[in-house]
Amino acid sequence: MFSRTVIRSATRSFSTSTVALNHANRAIAYTQNGDPAEVLNVITYPKLSPPSPNTVNIKFILSPINPADINTIEGVYPAKPSWTSDLASSGWGSKGKQVYVGGNEGLAKVVEVGEGVEGLKKDDWVVMDKPQLGTWATSRNVSFEDVIRLPATGLTEAHGATMTVNPTTAYNMLHNFVKLNQGDWVVQNGANSAVGQLVIQIAKALGINTINLVRPREDMAPLHRQLEGLGANKVLTYDELNDKSLRGKIKEWTNGKGIRLGLNCVGGDSTTAMAKLLGQDAHLVSYGAMSKQPLSLPTSLHIFKNLTSHGFWQSNWTKTHSRAEKEQLIGDLATMMRDGKIKAADHVVVTIGGQETNEEAIEKVRDVFSRMAQGKFGKKVLLRLEDFSG
Amino acid sequence: MFSRTVIRSATRSFSTSTVALNHANRAIAYTQNGDPAEVLNVITYPKLSPPSPNTVNIKFILSPINPADINTIEGVYPAKPSWTSDLASSGWGSKGKQVYVGGNEGLAKVVEVGEGVEGLKKDDWVVMDKPQLGTWATSRNVSFEDVIRLPATGLTEAHGATMTVNPTTAYNMLHNFVKLNQGDWVVQNGANSAVGQLVIQIAKALGINTINLVRPREDMAPLHRQLEGLGANKVLTYDELNDKSLRGKIKEWTNGKGIRLGLNCVGGDSTTAMAKLLGQDAHLVSYGAMSKQPLSLPTSLHIFKNLTSHGFWQSNWTKTHSRAEKEQLIGDLATMMRDGKIKAADHVVVTIGGQETNEEAIEKVRDVFSRMAQGKFGKKVLLRLEDFSG
Repeated sequence: MFSRTVIRSATRSFSTSTVALNHANRAIAYTQNGDPAEVLNVITYPKLSPPSPNTVNIKFILSPINPADINTIEGVYPAKPSWTSDLASSGWGSKGKQVYVGGNEGLAKVVEVGEGVEGLKKDDWVVMDKPQLGTWATSRNVSFEDVIRLPATGLTEAHGATMTVNPTTAYNMLHNFVKLNQGDWVVQNGANSAVGQLVIQIAKALGINTINLVRPREDMAPLHRQLEGLGANKVLTYDELNDKSLRGKIKEWTNGKGIRLGLNCVGGDSTTAMAKLLGQDAHLVSYGAMSKQPLSLPTSLHIFKNLTSHGFWQSNWTKTHSRAEKEQLIGDLATMMRDGKIKAADHVVVTIGGQETNEEAIEKVRDVFSRMAQGKFGKKVLLRLEDFSG
Repeated sequence: MFSRTVIRSATRSFSTSTVALNHANRAIAYTQNGDPAEVLNVITYPKLSPPSPNTVNIKFILSPINPADINTIEGVYPAKPSWTSDLASSGWGSKGKQVYVGGNEGLAKVVEVGEGVEGLKKDDWVVMDKPQLGTWATSRNVSFEDVIRLPATGLTEAHGATMTVNPTTAYNMLHNFVKLNQGDWVVQNGANSAVGQLVIQIAKALGINTINLVRPREDMAPLHRQLEGLGANKVLTYDELNDKSLRGKIKEWTNGKGIRLGLNCVGGDSTTAMAKLLGQDAHLVSYGAMSKQPLSLPTSLHIFKNLTSHGFWQSNWTKTHSRAEKEQLIGDLATMMRDGKIKAADHVVVTIGGQETNEEAIEKVRDVFSRMAQGKFGKKVLLRLEDFSG
């Protein structure tokens, strides 16, 4: 605490060189909600003190920008980041504003371990357990219970950086609502979304068959190749849901066994049609609403076919499950990734170099978000923040 | 078997007097789906033989006409009655047609017990365990496992006759989806329906509070008095769901505790609005769709508020639960009825007298269904079929 107090006083009258010497860390942060391309800033903050008991200092390797991160910055997402008090010394928060660091997901390395920390040692790779921890940063001091050690070696950085949002969602939706056995069938829409592609791969690894619905497009062949390459058994367009012969085909594919799980990230009419393909006692799990239409279901599906309609939100799962359950989940996913059963998401890495000034970095970051808003990436953007050496 | 064969042969050339002597039983039956006022007939059949092992002969006391019975006769209900082979000797089924006896619910008395029957003795009151048993009849021979003994004395015939469809539905919806504690709140629509009124009474008996939604009408006072008399805590109209201050009021009523159970028999917009009143981790249970509109829910309720949307159908519950569970349920309800916590449904008894000819009886029955279709009863109709003595 001593060193931090000294530095905080120092920042009140810092010179450029003091900043350069002390402020080895950098974060992408904001003090008010709004368009990320307008409200995000890049800030520096001092080297971390040695970790206090039960905490660890971690250094981020790669942190993705997920769609929900943008909604969180806009203030339209139900998950609210907490005020990052440990950045009060950044010379920015100390002006009386609350500083929020962006980013919910990320891969980090343990650099120093405080007293009393269990199960973590220097150089371990960790992923975030606590939502909205603020992963768009270089180094952070966190409670050791806020991170989970990655048990498997042989993972790429991209695997590790994108593990706790999409793969966990896909895995949990396939496991938590109905007991599926090898050979069972699952139907999903938005099948070429990030989660959809993971559902295909995890289902394949579990011996479960998938019917995958996607938006119709002129040339379906490349998408067929891509999803079938991941393990998709069937790929259909939403238009094909109107095909009267579809039920018969599905009956043939499934050998007459009812489909007991549907996964929905779309909503609207095509989801109603998808729900009608489900068998007796099925579960429909919604994790998104890309069409921005509500989920409309004939009551008879609920009453006579005993359909149950759920939502799934990984943040809520994380809040309501034990550390042991989370370690088990991360362990299972890491093993599947190591064994080549789950490919890392298609991605592009954006690096904020150590030599870049905050102004240059701010411009780069805001440009990334502007381009994302225009849909100019089409791949997951992973941020790599280097220690500030400017 | 001998006597039955003899009689069947006899019916081929029966004289009026033979029929009068042998055909002590009567049933309301049909051989094809359609408008009950057109397809129903009243048929006679012989006195029952002594019950074979593991069966009982029962004599019906009172059997209601439920809305689902009408849909079953129309052929638009998912529950299909089985062909009633024991009426082949009625002289009607023997013409090669399959005879279905109407009626799913009813109160009967055990008149004779076959070998090996457990837990039933002469004069016990029983209700039906097996759906679509055909209760619009005088006496029937059934497996002893197709009926459940009414354990409590002090019930009225009307209580017993209307126990296995509506009270079981209300009871199960309050018990099977979320663990409610005394002082918790439940919201329901269609609150003045038969099931709605039972929900109010059973909730009251359990110490659970109810918010009850009904269609607006000019003079709300009588309905308020009626439902509050049954134990309703709050009665609101669907229009009041649009009142911006409603959330605040509900928060006050519930002391800020989220409502965790909603019961729906309506569907459409007002149900969407009702679902939005539910708290975190709530369950919406649909058992009807009086508006004939689908159930449309914002996906965000599922994802972020973890709302689960179920259906409930008592016939399905009956099929999927053990005899012990069913006896427990009937026992609990019978006790509540005996203790005055559940009033018998408002009803009118229609008697088919023993002296009436089949032709007179057919006319009376068809007239009842015509008047029901025109909404001329407004009360539950209970059928009492007297032994045929014509």
